[in-house]
Amino acid sequence: MPDKNGILIVFSGPSGSGKDTVLKKLTEKNDDIRVSISMTTRPKRGQEVDGADYYFVTKDYFEKKIADGEMLEYAQYAGNYYGTPKAPVDEMLNAGINVVLEIEVQGAAKIRKIYPDAVSVFLMPPSLPALEERLRSRGTEDEETLSHRLFIAEQEIRRASEFSYVVVNDSIDDAVCDFETVIRAEKMRFSRNKNIISEVISNV
Amino acid sequence: MPDKNGILIVFSGPSGSGKDTVLKKLTEKNDDIRVSISMTTRPKRGQEVDGADYYFVTKDYFEKKIADGEMLEYAQYAGNYYGTPKAPVDEMLNAGINVVLEIEVQGAAKIRKIYPDAVSVFLMPPSLPALEERLRSRGTEDEETLSHRLFIAEQEIRRASEFSYVVVNDSIDDAVCDFETVIRAEKMRFSRNKNIISEVISNV
Repeated sequence: MPDKNGILIVFSGPSGSGKDTVLKKLTEKNDDIRVSISMTTRPKRGQEVDGADYYFVTKDYFEKKIADGEMLEYAQYAGNYYGTPKAPVDEMLNAGINVVLEIEVQGAAKIRKIYPDAVSVFLMPPSLPALEERLRSRGTEDEETLSHRLFIAEQEIRRASEFSYVVVNDSIDDAVCDFETVIRAEKMRFSRNKNIISEVISNV
Repeated sequence: MPDKNGILIVFSGPSGSGKDTVLKKLTEKNDDIRVSISMTTRPKRGQEVDGADYYFVTKDYFEKKIADGEMLEYAQYAGNYYGTPKAPVDEMLNAGINVVLEIEVQGAAKIRKIYPDAVSVFLMPPSLPALEERLRSRGTEDEETLSHRLFIAEQEIRRASEFSYVVVNDSIDDAVCDFETVIRAEKMRFSRNKNIISEVISNV
């Protein structure tokens, strides 16, 4: 008799820790887990699909959403807004879907304030050298960008203590299983099953 | 990089909920999970083995253990002492074994005070009528004993809110998997992996 509402999972980890790959496999395997779609004012690129990759909106629309208190969190990068609209998240949670919010480490604390029942998961690289190797193997960054990314990664790893759970990404498949394990265990928390006592006792 | 210490799991549920069957399967499947053995002053019966079913001791010995503060909890039934000695539990935890303490609902709160990191799991029957049927199918009790047991069971179920997790025993195999899921998820809690940040960062 699990709770009917979905669980909100705040998910962070340094760049290169494999968050996107883990989420892709996780949602492919589990119909009841979805990733929240961000809203942005930056132009659509290449094959990107509105409502799948991002909600692509105008700056005016985004700023109205902020003013109306309808953004869970947002930030500006390179002159564009990026953020999470609250309504679709609440809709999914009410429909029993577990929603993953992939978010910057700094944004995670804010979400936990709005949703005290949220679970937070930090995806940890096996080691900093392993992370460096992954970033290098992408081959997309020069030496300076790379060492800046590693510096940021170390700062983020130091904030892992703010998260409830740590999943070590030694292997993608294990990390996906670990993530599922966290969600399944959280479903069994008494705090998410408060009606169970009266249901069991009155079930005649 | 999970924590080296085992987790202490306080495990309760009403009589007839299937605790012993779940624990038997759980420990058969998992080498790293063991059930704490109780100490008692009652005489050994039939095939019972000292150090496996119980530690069978004298009343003097038991009372000395109480006086020395070496019992985690104890109670008296029908003139005999029953309780949990602390030393073997600590030894197993230090060796990385996850230790299950099967305990009365009332005793659980006390253990959580001594081990704040302990996890508590309540084994819930699918319903009171289902529990009644299980107790009846044992065929070992008269009507009066049975209705007394059901009365106690209801009281215990009402205290399930004091536990962290609720595992519903719809099927033994599912309940065993659920129990394993709780332990595996708890292993990933940041609070049980406090060294991970320095390990990941300094791992060169």
